[in-house]
Amino acid sequence: MKPVKNKVVIIGAGMVGSAVMNSVLTLGLAAEIVVIDNNINKAKGETLDASHTTSFAYSPNVLLRVGDYEDCTDAQIIIMTAGPSLKPGETLDRLLLAEKNVSVMKSVMSSITKYTKDAVIIVVTNPVDIVTYLAQNHFDYPKEKIIGTGTLLDTARLRRILAMKYSIDTKNVHGYVLGEHGGSAFATWSLVNAAGIPYKEFHKLLGSKEPVDTDATLAEAKDTGLKILELKGYTSSGIAMSVSRIVKAVLLNELSVLPVSTTLDGEYGITNVALSIPCVISSDGISQKLEVPLSENEIAKLNVSANNLGKILDDLNIRK
Amino acid sequence: MKPVKNKVVIIGAGMVGSAVMNSVLTLGLAAEIVVIDNNINKAKGETLDASHTTSFAYSPNVLLRVGDYEDCTDAQIIIMTAGPSLKPGETLDRLLLAEKNVSVMKSVMSSITKYTKDAVIIVVTNPVDIVTYLAQNHFDYPKEKIIGTGTLLDTARLRRILAMKYSIDTKNVHGYVLGEHGGSAFATWSLVNAAGIPYKEFHKLLGSKEPVDTDATLAEAKDTGLKILELKGYTSSGIAMSVSRIVKAVLLNELSVLPVSTTLDGEYGITNVALSIPCVISSDGISQKLEVPLSENEIAKLNVSANNLGKILDDLNIRK
Amino acid sequence: MKPVKNKVVIIGAGMVGSAVMNSVLTLGLAAEIVVIDNNINKAKGETLDASHTTSFAYSPNVLLRVGDYEDCTDAQIIIMTAGPSLKPGETLDRLLLAEKNVSVMKSVMSSITKYTKDAVIIVVTNPVDIVTYLAQNHFDYPKEKIIGTGTLLDTARLRRILAMKYSIDTKNVHGYVLGEHGGSAFATWSLVNAAGIPYKEFHKLLGSKEPVDTDATLAEAKDTGLKILELKGYTSSGIAMSVSRIVKAVLLNELSVLPVSTTLDGEYGITNVALSIPCVISSDGISQKLEVPLSENEIAKLNVSANNLGKILDDLNIRK
Amino acid sequence: MKPVKNKVVIIGAGMVGSAVMNSVLTLGLAAEIVVIDNNINKAKGETLDASHTTSFAYSPNVLLRVGDYEDCTDAQIIIMTAGPSLKPGETLDRLLLAEKNVSVMKSVMSSITKYTKDAVIIVVTNPVDIVTYLAQNHFDYPKEKIIGTGTLLDTARLRRILAMKYSIDTKNVHGYVLGEHGGSAFATWSLVNAAGIPYKEFHKLLGSKEPVDTDATLAEAKDTGLKILELKGYTSSGIAMSVSRIVKAVLLNELSVLPVSTTLDGEYGITNVALSIPCVISSDGISQKLEVPLSENEIAKLNVSANNLGKILDDLNIRK
Repeated sequence: MKPVKNKVVIIGAGMVGSAVMNSVLTLGLAAEIVVIDNNINKAKGETLDASHTTSFAYSPNVLLRVGDYEDCTDAQIIIMTAGPSLKPGETLDRLLLAEKNVSVMKSVMSSITKYTKDAVIIVVTNPVDIVTYLAQNHFDYPKEKIIGTGTLLDTARLRRILAMKYSIDTKNVHGYVLGEHGGSAFATWSLVNAAGIPYKEFHKLLGSKEPVDTDATLAEAKDTGLKILELKGYTSSGIAMSVSRIVKAVLLNELSVLPVSTTLDGEYGITNVALSIPCVISSDGISQKLEVPLSENEIAKLNVSANNLGKILDDLNIRK
Repeated sequence: MKPVKNKVVIIGAGMVGSAVMNSVLTLGLAAEIVVIDNNINKAKGETLDASHTTSFAYSPNVLLRVGDYEDCTDAQIIIMTAGPSLKPGETLDRLLLAEKNVSVMKSVMSSITKYTKDAVIIVVTNPVDIVTYLAQNHFDYPKEKIIGTGTLLDTARLRRILAMKYSIDTKNVHGYVLGEHGGSAFATWSLVNAAGIPYKEFHKLLGSKEPVDTDATLAEAKDTGLKILELKGYTSSGIAMSVSRIVKAVLLNELSVLPVSTTLDGEYGITNVALSIPCVISSDGISQKLEVPLSENEIAKLNVSANNLGKILDDLNIRK
Repeated sequence: MKPVKNKVVIIGAGMVGSAVMNSVLTLGLAAEIVVIDNNINKAKGETLDASHTTSFAYSPNVLLRVGDYEDCTDAQIIIMTAGPSLKPGETLDRLLLAEKNVSVMKSVMSSITKYTKDAVIIVVTNPVDIVTYLAQNHFDYPKEKIIGTGTLLDTARLRRILAMKYSIDTKNVHGYVLGEHGGSAFATWSLVNAAGIPYKEFHKLLGSKEPVDTDATLAEAKDTGLKILELKGYTSSGIAMSVSRIVKAVLLNELSVLPVSTTLDGEYGITNVALSIPCVISSDGISQKLEVPLSENEIAKLNVSANNLGKILDDLNIRK
Repeated sequence: MKPVKNKVVIIGAGMVGSAVMNSVLTLGLAAEIVVIDNNINKAKGETLDASHTTSFAYSPNVLLRVGDYEDCTDAQIIIMTAGPSLKPGETLDRLLLAEKNVSVMKSVMSSITKYTKDAVIIVVTNPVDIVTYLAQNHFDYPKEKIIGTGTLLDTARLRRILAMKYSIDTKNVHGYVLGEHGGSAFATWSLVNAAGIPYKEFHKLLGSKEPVDTDATLAEAKDTGLKILELKGYTSSGIAMSVSRIVKAVLLNELSVLPVSTTLDGEYGITNVALSIPCVISSDGISQKLEVPLSENEIAKLNVSANNLGKILDDLNIRK
């Protein structure tokens, strides 16, 4: 048993990568955080700025630095945020990014696999389902050790919207957004509840007279990313915390259930496409894919997502 | 708006009171913690010992000291842990403690009300439902500002037992133990789920082949307190964290739903008795009592608890 | 005693303001964070993005929203980050910003004082010494409740540089950068030590053979801000943590010593100018200004800073 | 690189061991905590009680259980708290415990070394300097991986006493208690300062008119353990946090300087005896022993401690 490294490598020092860096730093679980970016200046600026946060009481003395792929050798976790992302005003379909980022991911995975097959890889780069599929299926890397952030953030948004409207702690709102992280994502209304109260009773039992408008709520959750993009020019805090939640589940072997993207292998009758269903996250990565009970309608929507994503994989000629 | 005090007063420096003190200290939310105990030496020993924890990096410079009821004047939270408790080998019925602790609580409430009617009071002293009823109904103190810990710890135990057996993060297991904190407590199996999977599917979808034995699981959850009593001579860590969870919900105005004891006023058809149902906890105390949907059978069990507790209130001659 | 609000108002939703918002959110001490910005879209985007971080386990259910000055009424802390800041490539002298930001601060203080004189105000806007002087001396606001971040971040940088070079926990490196937050800032080398080892012994007793080059180290600390500006286009993480450290000291009444900017009143023979010396920070703001022992040379440098800043105050015609 | 275990083994489930368990649990850094005790019931009771704390939001899903020495195989940290300790009213000299606990430690080290030579071992059992010497010198275990808690708690107490008297954040008070954890411990007054103010100036510059009475303050710090023993019957919170501070420095590879007990090898001219001097703590254990500058008088006192302890080692016939 070698000394623990609790080392995290972040690929990409853009707005998402740097927000992830700051968020992981705040977790207080990493002893070392290494940032890799072609734009070395940006990576240097971000690590330098963040390094001063460690001078204060309450901050662990984290080693923060710019590095390269060799740093993956003894990393526990690698977080992939690199690649171009949507800018405000650009066309909305995340899938147009696919071709470019598939190419970026190929290069990144080739570099990572030179040094490790042990680290858990968290994929943030969009379209996350496509990029995750590529990573899991085109490299001889343990599939369960690759996790796409998928609809984890969409789920967080849905829960927050309901929590605010019905005046209840967001942590008490349950249910998922599943499927594609993109246009065909859907909410599992059959599972949505607040502290055990099903969503249809929210207006009777919680702090608002209006019943849940499921279509409007899902639309709001799905549009939030674009809305933030328009309002502030990029998204960062929410996705950074999504990644941090996965990091914590991995480093502390929590067995936490989170909706994340992974290649299905017969779950809900779907195979050979990556999308989000609830998964158990441990120090090994995805230790179980859960077939939580969904309504027929919801399973149908999951298949729509699978078909959409499958077509893109076909178009990109990367489906196995 | 005066400067925040973030001041917590703990009444009782026994095994529970001192564990609560250490747990609240660890929350990092209190600027000042005052302990009141007739046994001044015990209170001094506990505050002195704990005060050295603040010398280390990562610990806020909390003011920890022995005090008296005048300290309630500017406290946000008062935690009542005083009074005799069961010892290993003593008869199991918590309600035998009632008479003695009713008398203790009368004295404590008389002292508190001389100085404040603003603090949120968390009642831990057993039988907690009786003592909470007394505090809420026999003193001119805002009812919603008095919270009994009730079945919060029983609920934590039920969730942990299921989580360990089915290899999943305890935070993903939902459902409640409700009613009396004692013999007639029951589990809301109709609401028990893990990440959306109902308990009847646990053995098919999670990490164990055995189906949930509801009676055995509830019995285990309810017997855990006595088991710990026999194994280590007292209970402390679990109840301390239960209190800390309420403290955090109050100080951060979280609107968190927790099963706690309060006098019902028509909820589930029950009135004029204190027992645990899920409540919304805010900086005002209990800001809402939730009628989460229960099965008929569960509502019947809640009424059994209400009747049991009502009889004790009658016997003690304290029912209004 | 009213319920605690633990409410923080942040003025300005730019790169610094939004980093401060995320950092304060992470502290886990605020129940409510309100952001005020003329650019309402930016403020909305930042609060919306950050609000989703609260959906995850481990995050308090913080109320995050856009607001206006009326929100200052029941705030404990107000953080001023608004006003233009230096952009990469612009001339380096922070003091050129003075005239503009004095005007911004006048407007902000007029708005704040309509609603409160109780909140602790943390001033981040540059030139921080000038803006702090203005706030403390031109409005009928309790002086001790106004804190300029001053050389707190410069101090953090100096400590980190030494800690990295000599392979020791940054929290074990002591000493200050004092005076003007700007060109005439100086290090108190007479106080600099690591775990009790004076800086002149670092190379003998710690992990590097090279003695401390005091001039180069101070220059590096002072240039770091500009370096980050060039590398990533703005500074955010470090200043955000500096603010958060003050926020924690205030909300928990820690009596922590931090080098911050305040109007001197005879300390080290200096009066009627704001600059940084070590101060004790409590829930009342600056509860004491400490005359830590400085060498004659260091006191001379402090006077140079005072003179520089005094001239600017004169030029701006705001010196009382 | 195997998955991180972040596993901590605690030997001894008495008042100290169980407080350590709860404190390490609260750190939020351990994925698994295993408790070993001959009194299996006590160990079961403590782990069972603490396990329910993990059911609440904000608590990681830690695996807490009773185990045996085989669990050391993949542990990062082993904490030794077993062996008899002083009871209130017993004679005060900690060294009388030596013979008994040397024997306990021999047995424990024999068991540990069957399974690992990689874990960092933290020794709490008293007399800690004797037990640490034994562990470092009588077993083929890397010396630097064995850390005695030594005067870390005495140091915390000294700092807290001064901080309270002079109204300043304890984290701003520096200086050490060094030497034997026991009668001959001494304070390094030449290094004692608050935020850079030497102790001789405290009464002029901080919140009290009385100068520091060095003898009385040291005596108070040294007597505090016995005082707590008399007041509450045992000591727990303070020592538990001392251990947790070391655990954090190890798991996060912090390079933190803490006064801990280790066998000297020429430092200050002392060899072949274990006592406390400031050491750098990393993931490898004690990565450096620091010869912080002491006055001649202080070095003389360190030698007195060394002689006292050496005689005991001789008497016990365990000096190499």
